[in-house]
Amino acid sequence: MTESDSKNAILLMHCPDKKGIVAAVTEFLDKNNGNIVDLDEHVDHEEKVFFMRIEWELENFSIPRDKIGEYFNTLIADRYNMQWNLFFSDKLPRMAIFVSKMPHCLYDILARYTAGEWKVEIPLIISNHEELRPIAEQFDIPYHVFPIKKENKAEQEKLEIELLKKHQVDFIVLARYMQVLSSDFVKEFPNKVINIHHSFLPAFPGAKPYHSARERGVKIIGATSHYATSELDGGPIIEQDVTRIDHKDDVKILIRKGRDLEKIVLSRAVFLHLKRQLLVYKNKTIVFN
Amino acid sequence: MTESDSKNAILLMHCPDKKGIVAAVTEFLDKNNGNIVDLDEHVDHEEKVFFMRIEWELENFSIPRDKIGEYFNTLIADRYNMQWNLFFSDKLPRMAIFVSKMPHCLYDILARYTAGEWKVEIPLIISNHEELRPIAEQFDIPYHVFPIKKENKAEQEKLEIELLKKHQVDFIVLARYMQVLSSDFVKEFPNKVINIHHSFLPAFPGAKPYHSARERGVKIIGATSHYATSELDGGPIIEQDVTRIDHKDDVKILIRKGRDLEKIVLSRAVFLHLKRQLLVYKNKTIVFN
Amino acid sequence: MTESDSKNAILLMHCPDKKGIVAAVTEFLDKNNGNIVDLDEHVDHEEKVFFMRIEWELENFSIPRDKIGEYFNTLIADRYNMQWNLFFSDKLPRMAIFVSKMPHCLYDILARYTAGEWKVEIPLIISNHEELRPIAEQFDIPYHVFPIKKENKAEQEKLEIELLKKHQVDFIVLARYMQVLSSDFVKEFPNKVINIHHSFLPAFPGAKPYHSARERGVKIIGATSHYATSELDGGPIIEQDVTRIDHKDDVKILIRKGRDLEKIVLSRAVFLHLKRQLLVYKNKTIVFN
Amino acid sequence: MTESDSKNAILLMHCPDKKGIVAAVTEFLDKNNGNIVDLDEHVDHEEKVFFMRIEWELENFSIPRDKIGEYFNTLIADRYNMQWNLFFSDKLPRMAIFVSKMPHCLYDILARYTAGEWKVEIPLIISNHEELRPIAEQFDIPYHVFPIKKENKAEQEKLEIELLKKHQVDFIVLARYMQVLSSDFVKEFPNKVINIHHSFLPAFPGAKPYHSARERGVKIIGATSHYATSELDGGPIIEQDVTRIDHKDDVKILIRKGRDLEKIVLSRAVFLHLKRQLLVYKNKTIVFN
Repeated sequence: MTESDSKNAILLMHCPDKKGIVAAVTEFLDKNNGNIVDLDEHVDHEEKVFFMRIEWELENFSIPRDKIGEYFNTLIADRYNMQWNLFFSDKLPRMAIFVSKMPHCLYDILARYTAGEWKVEIPLIISNHEELRPIAEQFDIPYHVFPIKKENKAEQEKLEIELLKKHQVDFIVLARYMQVLSSDFVKEFPNKVINIHHSFLPAFPGAKPYHSARERGVKIIGATSHYATSELDGGPIIEQDVTRIDHKDDVKILIRKGRDLEKIVLSRAVFLHLKRQLLVYKNKTIVFN
Repeated sequence: MTESDSKNAILLMHCPDKKGIVAAVTEFLDKNNGNIVDLDEHVDHEEKVFFMRIEWELENFSIPRDKIGEYFNTLIADRYNMQWNLFFSDKLPRMAIFVSKMPHCLYDILARYTAGEWKVEIPLIISNHEELRPIAEQFDIPYHVFPIKKENKAEQEKLEIELLKKHQVDFIVLARYMQVLSSDFVKEFPNKVINIHHSFLPAFPGAKPYHSARERGVKIIGATSHYATSELDGGPIIEQDVTRIDHKDDVKILIRKGRDLEKIVLSRAVFLHLKRQLLVYKNKTIVFN
Repeated sequence: MTESDSKNAILLMHCPDKKGIVAAVTEFLDKNNGNIVDLDEHVDHEEKVFFMRIEWELENFSIPRDKIGEYFNTLIADRYNMQWNLFFSDKLPRMAIFVSKMPHCLYDILARYTAGEWKVEIPLIISNHEELRPIAEQFDIPYHVFPIKKENKAEQEKLEIELLKKHQVDFIVLARYMQVLSSDFVKEFPNKVINIHHSFLPAFPGAKPYHSARERGVKIIGATSHYATSELDGGPIIEQDVTRIDHKDDVKILIRKGRDLEKIVLSRAVFLHLKRQLLVYKNKTIVFN
Repeated sequence: MTESDSKNAILLMHCPDKKGIVAAVTEFLDKNNGNIVDLDEHVDHEEKVFFMRIEWELENFSIPRDKIGEYFNTLIADRYNMQWNLFFSDKLPRMAIFVSKMPHCLYDILARYTAGEWKVEIPLIISNHEELRPIAEQFDIPYHVFPIKKENKAEQEKLEIELLKKHQVDFIVLARYMQVLSSDFVKEFPNKVINIHHSFLPAFPGAKPYHSARERGVKIIGATSHYATSELDGGPIIEQDVTRIDHKDDVKILIRKGRDLEKIVLSRAVFLHLKRQLLVYKNKTIVFN
């Protein structure tokens, strides 16, 4: 994966596996003077599906930027029954952050954003609590509170969705947001809501995983970032990591050790999403590295 | 933890937490001229239980070896309502290995044994299949086959237990033994049957964990060594480790990558057991390092 | 290690190894009604040196807080020729941060501080550049710039030391401070300057370790936190960690991957220092966990 | 990477980077009815070099097996100024093992070989000592001893080379062989001698790395597998891994913990070599995964 600053186009695609796809796609780019800077393909031999991510420089590419999708569709995708997405590296995605009371993931994200580590825009932060407003102010990002109770959940989520759409938000990061999003909400943003769960899924889904880890006596704890789906903690896993613990570590210590895992794993997942290195297929992710 | 070759005594103990226990125990050893080479204690502040492992040199210790238990019990353990075990580093434990058809854990154990990495005796290998007999012969260890079907399981296990007792076996290592031991069997050897499960427990207990891991799309797989109890894959965890995988790794590759995890994690657990670094309390292990 | 909030005293000590030290120290505390919450000892059998960290609750301890040192010295330390340090968990250490132009470690530290993860005071940030002043202002911490050139280094360091002493700074964290401190400076703060070096020491000391790592073709990169001494990158190592890389990772990517390592490893080291879990002996650290 | 058992051809290639290479190679295979099962390419943008590994099924491929090299060279490689190697998955490489006195790596290799984990032939083991002959006999592999002293080194190495050639050995694994091979020897087998060094290179090259690690007080130790070159411990790194240690671990313990690292890292490197996943360029490896 390059870290270049040139203006690039990125295609993510998948289709039934057939001979000749790589040749067809690379030829299409070569003939139109597109300098390929990254190509990563994968064939799932069980599912017989072909996956590819290809990135090329827009400079000198002979097809105008706003026509690339159309040409690719007509000349290649239709032929191979392909599903595809086209992205441009100079178009910054717009990300909303959802938080509750814990600041560590939020700080980690905002620090990266402010330091210019990520190419992203953050038009707003949404929370169900007031607690983290000072951090939003510190980083000068609008902070909207939607208190959520059983009775008003549907209604509040509707308002959130409206606000997100008004701000043209492309995707959402749940930075230890301690509310389960409804199925209706999640369906508005398919594969566009990134969650961090504080366990090594599928171990310890749901509430209080550190307590469960302590109770079970595991020797390693983990964190899992995944796309939220309507099944709680059941969506496609993007990234996981773990750290060793021992019998001396009580729940308080697990929570402390877990914080570092959570923020790093979540930020890695967001970065992969921003770099268009993720493709979801049948509740699993293909991670192009 | 020392790796010394001197003749040492080791005490593992736990009791309700109270002031003065460390002082009492260390004073008992000091006064009788016992040179402490290792002391590791732990207080579980939630359970209010005190745990300790202490190891000292027998040379110059003024209490005769066969009286240590009695003296310790009278002078210390009774006073603190202690449960304890006494071991001597020069008394080699006798270990039985159970296998089925997969050789990797068996090879790893026998290689360590033959190379002198472990202070242990291996009087026999038990299997439900003939397949690995050649390895037993290669390493010159008696190999006993007990074919097990639903109908004969209780009866066969009885014969196994008899054989194990005849050989004065202290503990059992299930080196990818693909048969669930009955509760009756396990109860004969409490905290003395070490199993290796090929997943990161509590994720993917039971059969075919690599298939489940592939299906769920995890980014990390693991292996777990634990003491077998009557609850399948539910016993006290001794050691775990993990390795990264990605979307390209099909089940065959997971099995290959998992083999290395399994053998290393199992051997680490056996080593801890041999060194008397493990204490079980309420379905969890205290690992003294 | 407990995470309790009670007022505790902590003793770090080392002395020539002898029988009876643990008994003597624990008896001293027990007899004076000190409830031990943590005890970790280590004997270096090659050096024949005994090390211990012991933590107990001040509540009900019968020796007044300002007399503990004197009593311990007279009754125990003198007898065993001990070197020791006494700390109180409710006395917050005062930490200065040195930075240059890279913000990631600074952000990580200030986020933890603001979130209350650490019990510490941060009276000031010192830098040789203006760049990070906005972050200091964001977190409301005084920011002092001492531009350093060959000609003025000695003089500027003198001013820095004055300022640090005026602010009663207990220890210093070099959060990617890109200036080598002089021997004179370091000697003012023995084992009190924590540095983060962006390699797996002793591999790649000095400048541009990521370039060297790329050049050498290593498959893993690391970060090392250590106490600064007069030998560049040669001080006692506190904590290290690593991450896998591959041939696709150019220097830019190494720098990005390294940033996460650096900030986490540095923060772990600072945390150990704050919790008084570190003891330095002969250019190595004993880490009490 | 697939683990399939079909008969495949594998091409490893590199050349100056140019547009159209992927298209040209994949078209060449597609047109001749070669079903591509794996394609992994990499462009080094600094060196402007293109690397690729491509694997396809021989079944139905219209170019006869013994003509593939010639055709590929004429039609593709010449045009792009390519260096390439062609391998067939059904042709087992012949591997010699060099050992001294330590058995752990040897056991690990022979266990994998006997269990059928690796597709390889092992015609002989060479040693400078008698110690491990019983293991060779256990696994029924010829064992040749060449005692080496300063005076006879050149001469003995000549005899070894003769023997290796007589046995048509393709590559050599130094399984903790404690003799430095001469430059002359290494030059006979360029990128064909796989060594395991018991440290995290470039830290602690040369003799006694565990002693040096203990002395330096590192918190992590490692092992490194690399192709031997005339520069001691300076060849292209294939694989590395690490494990955490602490102040309690004396040299004996480091050696024990290191053994597991060494055998696993070496075996991973050998596996990559066997699967033709390694390409060496300017003293670095490209590892196709």
